[in-house]
Amino acid sequence: MKRGTLRLIEVGPRDGLQNEPNTIPLDAKIAFVNGLGKTGVAEIEVSSFVSSRWVPQLGDAEDVFLKIDRAPGVIYSALVPNEKGLDRALACDIDKISVFTAASEVFNKHNINASIKESIERFRPVVERSERPVRGYISTAIWCPYEGKIEPSAVVDVAKQLIDLGVSELSVADTVGKASPPEVRALLDALLPCAVPVALHFHDTYGMAIANVLTAYKEYGIASFDGSAGGLGGCPYAPGASGNVATEDLAFAFGASGVEVGVDINSVIEAARPLEQYLGRPLASRLSQVPEF
Amino acid sequence: MKRGTLRLIEVGPRDGLQNEPNTIPLDAKIAFVNGLGKTGVAEIEVSSFVSSRWVPQLGDAEDVFLKIDRAPGVIYSALVPNEKGLDRALACDIDKISVFTAASEVFNKHNINASIKESIERFRPVVERSERPVRGYISTAIWCPYEGKIEPSAVVDVAKQLIDLGVSELSVADTVGKASPPEVRALLDALLPCAVPVALHFHDTYGMAIANVLTAYKEYGIASFDGSAGGLGGCPYAPGASGNVATEDLAFAFGASGVEVGVDINSVIEAARPLEQYLGRPLASRLSQVPEF
Repeated sequence: MKRGTLRLIEVGPRDGLQNEPNTIPLDAKIAFVNGLGKTGVAEIEVSSFVSSRWVPQLGDAEDVFLKIDRAPGVIYSALVPNEKGLDRALACDIDKISVFTAASEVFNKHNINASIKESIERFRPVVERSERPVRGYISTAIWCPYEGKIEPSAVVDVAKQLIDLGVSELSVADTVGKASPPEVRALLDALLPCAVPVALHFHDTYGMAIANVLTAYKEYGIASFDGSAGGLGGCPYAPGASGNVATEDLAFAFGASGVEVGVDINSVIEAARPLEQYLGRPLASRLSQVPEF
Repeated sequence: MKRGTLRLIEVGPRDGLQNEPNTIPLDAKIAFVNGLGKTGVAEIEVSSFVSSRWVPQLGDAEDVFLKIDRAPGVIYSALVPNEKGLDRALACDIDKISVFTAASEVFNKHNINASIKESIERFRPVVERSERPVRGYISTAIWCPYEGKIEPSAVVDVAKQLIDLGVSELSVADTVGKASPPEVRALLDALLPCAVPVALHFHDTYGMAIANVLTAYKEYGIASFDGSAGGLGGCPYAPGASGNVATEDLAFAFGASGVEVGVDINSVIEAARPLEQYLGRPLASRLSQVPEF
């Protein structure tokens, strides 16, 4: 199967930090994003233009965007939940926007207080007015903490609605972090024939993320994977879901498998390490804990 | 490829505990082994008949063997370094013995103070007099903390010597925990044509173990994998090497992939959990940290 160039999409500043209870100072976020810009990742999801009432940790999205250095060739994106968020995002001249829904009705209700259909309708004017590439997240694409196993057909149904809206890319997420390679295969068999380019977004709760990523790359030619520097992240609405798979662990897994990835492991760890003092715990990635690589 | 029935070999009581600095009480070890006997694992490596001067933690090997309940159908084995150890092992009527060498000369020198050739000669009378099946470990089979990458030909060379000695099975170990699926493929391509049945023994230091295990199972039909309950273990001579891949994480990975494994995840965690009080830290496995599975 022909593969595109491998692209790692860094979601640590948004997905990694959004649920952290300790406030991360603005300067630390800016330093984090600036450090990530030097790692070789293709994109950085910098923040979310959601109301700070809902996600107080990311209430400083404008300040972060206006103060970071933008590395040439790197795409700086953010989550945009609605038109109000879009106005804020456009004022910051961000490169790309992301909209976020789920394949599970119950999860969507808990997470964004909307049905899947309502969420899609909410995105319609956002995508129409965006004048930028739009990434459409489909979370709980394999397992849902409330509904259990999600059928590939449910994901395909949401994917088609997002594609009809005009998204240019899907990021399909194993939010619970429990998927196995055969489940990933079943999903991709159903999804790839109908979809725009697909990125995969794994959490590593059950230790399956690397196996899934290598399967999707090797067998399906998927070449875009989301990662979070230091393995930051988690999901309060997905009980037990630990962090996103770490960007540096992805970079190691591909490099060790002989796949050119272009992301410097040391630089990713160096970008994330200073956050430990605010998180109150060490980074969760494997590569941040080994003496050499 | 035809696959045999999947067999998980529990090495926690030996490989998992041997380097723990805090003394684990005899009763806790007995309870651990008795608990493991109820999990569905095929074999349990109970202890090591090495001198207690070298491995004080396992100095009570006889006491453990004489006091555990032996579950029907489960093979109870131990590491035997030399003839003196064999005499002790035979006195306990163990089911199977293991001998331990490496594919790296420098590692072997650090670990058992012998060249590979010397170690093989030391095993000769042990295997001859064993009257039991013998497992031959080949550690540092892919990476060595001192020599770096190990060529498959070096592993094949040691494998042939062990097979000539009369071992009935090899356990080939990624001691450093750094191997990738392509490296596992290269090793198995070279090793399988010449070898007796091969078990694989992974550490999960770099987060690659599950990907490697599923590759070896799916593509090569390897059906015996070593695991350590709770992810116990590590290796003082392999800097940075974290624990063995956890037995319960293996069981989950196979079960989630639709492969019948016959090992009860809950029972494995329950067997290992009481050790936390002696280790002074929580279990390292993924499955011991999730709310449900």
